[in-house]
Amino acid sequence: MNLRVGVDLGATKIQTLLVASDGSIVARKRGTTPATGGPSAVLTRVQETIEQLLVRADQPATAVATIGIGAPGQIDAAAGVVLQAVNIAGWDQPVPVAGIVGDMFGVPVALANDVQASIVAEHRLGAGRGRTNLLGIFCGTGVGGGLILNGELWLGGGAAGEIGHTVVVQAGRQCGCGRNGCLEAYAGRGALEQTARLQYDAGRPTVLFDLMEQQGRTRLTSRVWLDACLQSDELASGLITEAARAVGTAAGSAANLLDIDCVVIGGGLATRLGDRFLGDVRAAAQPVLLRPETANQIVLSELGDDCGALGAALLAGDRLAGS
Amino acid sequence: MNLRVGVDLGATKIQTLLVASDGSIVARKRGTTPATGGPSAVLTRVQETIEQLLVRADQPATAVATIGIGAPGQIDAAAGVVLQAVNIAGWDQPVPVAGIVGDMFGVPVALANDVQASIVAEHRLGAGRGRTNLLGIFCGTGVGGGLILNGELWLGGGAAGEIGHTVVVQAGRQCGCGRNGCLEAYAGRGALEQTARLQYDAGRPTVLFDLMEQQGRTRLTSRVWLDACLQSDELASGLITEAARAVGTAAGSAANLLDIDCVVIGGGLATRLGDRFLGDVRAAAQPVLLRPETANQIVLSELGDDCGALGAALLAGDRLAGS
Repeated sequence: MNLRVGVDLGATKIQTLLVASDGSIVARKRGTTPATGGPSAVLTRVQETIEQLLVRADQPATAVATIGIGAPGQIDAAAGVVLQAVNIAGWDQPVPVAGIVGDMFGVPVALANDVQASIVAEHRLGAGRGRTNLLGIFCGTGVGGGLILNGELWLGGGAAGEIGHTVVVQAGRQCGCGRNGCLEAYAGRGALEQTARLQYDAGRPTVLFDLMEQQGRTRLTSRVWLDACLQSDELASGLITEAARAVGTAAGSAANLLDIDCVVIGGGLATRLGDRFLGDVRAAAQPVLLRPETANQIVLSELGDDCGALGAALLAGDRLAGS
Repeated sequence: MNLRVGVDLGATKIQTLLVASDGSIVARKRGTTPATGGPSAVLTRVQETIEQLLVRADQPATAVATIGIGAPGQIDAAAGVVLQAVNIAGWDQPVPVAGIVGDMFGVPVALANDVQASIVAEHRLGAGRGRTNLLGIFCGTGVGGGLILNGELWLGGGAAGEIGHTVVVQAGRQCGCGRNGCLEAYAGRGALEQTARLQYDAGRPTVLFDLMEQQGRTRLTSRVWLDACLQSDELASGLITEAARAVGTAAGSAANLLDIDCVVIGGGLATRLGDRFLGDVRAAAQPVLLRPETANQIVLSELGDDCGALGAALLAGDRLAGS
């Protein structure tokens, strides 16, 4: 009765974990986020995925003490409501996720922002273990961020951590958010694909879209970007270097402002590109940092795809079990 | 016996205040920082200025409980030592300021970074009263910054607040610190003068240097910049607008990252230029802010030239009297 379920509710996939009270992962199960059917279809898939997770772990539902759910977009954590999650189809209205999933399983459910959950997981169990002041930068479809200050998740007015929407290029490339020059416009997979498409359509050669088709994909996945870079594709390599440079600049500026001692780089894109990406991030951050040696404290996520679900499980444990 | 002395030890002037226990200012006295003679000449001038301050207030030295000194550069606050202050002539070696001034007056002396002192003063008694999360950006010769998070001065590893060395233009203008694209390279008076001089030497017309001579100055003071702007000098107005834009961009990015509720703009240059500068800062920040309404929470310093000395007095009171 003291297992915790963690759920990372993403735009394309639902990652679930069964977590022991010491934070170790007992089992994993991944589902696909339904593209149609809106919130009810998605939350039914969450229910099914958790049930499959329990079957896989050979545990009854009564073994679950709490469920933590990390979701993208604007969250009212206290109310357990996703206010808006534009990346999930049909989630443009508030969805009382904690209440609905709580009714499904009869246990307390806590909701958190997915990126805030991720940085908590990296801080307690991942690359940021033992650090006091920590910034997380997560490059996936967009670029999310989270801050640990004095060992605690920093929420500010509730929405802190938005390093993806700090400016790295004044009046620079337009971001999906409508602003200009945001980090996300350079280092988010969505923006990278858009830029690559524009340049490809303008006649610049690249293997990116051939690889995408060969891999049966409809968008440029992190795997496609990696493979193109491994083939020394000039367009792909150039854009990824530019992305890493933007991440490094933003990391350096934030480190100077907050005098933090560690930056964790995570998210699907960064995790897939690995050390090559990290090296470029460090090289870009070093000339910005007031303490250049901090560049070595920029590290890759250790928890990878488990990060969000694990953090959600931890945060739910904190809030609901008082641990 | 419960008056506090606050000292703002600057590159060109020494501002001293006598402060009552409720934070009200009893008297002011300003001295000029000696350009020669190194630390001993400067600290002798500090002594003289404090003595003149006491005479002006008609108070005996025994009425002083604590002395707080705000100084630029790298500070070891616990040891009371200025490690390095490159802007003060001859201060390239550590100077045990608290010990020396303490011996002069026989009272406890606390040392603080001048900008950190300033943000504390604005938070308690100035434009940031009642705010929980506050960023200060102080545009003087350089650009300093300070953070109040959860109502407390945020120090990070000890040197937090360096918004002057966050990047606003990737690979942009060279900063005095040797880095590129720092806010200070656009919004510090030193950098502004350098840029104006280069453009003037290249043949661009401006009244800046004529005004400087007419006012008997050897550098472009904040007053000179204001007067040139009031005369609609194109070069001056353009550079000041660019400076405000850089401040607004940096303020917006920091507000997004930290989700803070207030930004105080201070320092000699910003204070002198006033509402015009503030308007440009807000206009630049608004399109960056995730909460655009936060632009109205960007406000001018209320304490002006008293800010650093008042904050130093307050911090000394906290540290030495346990208040």
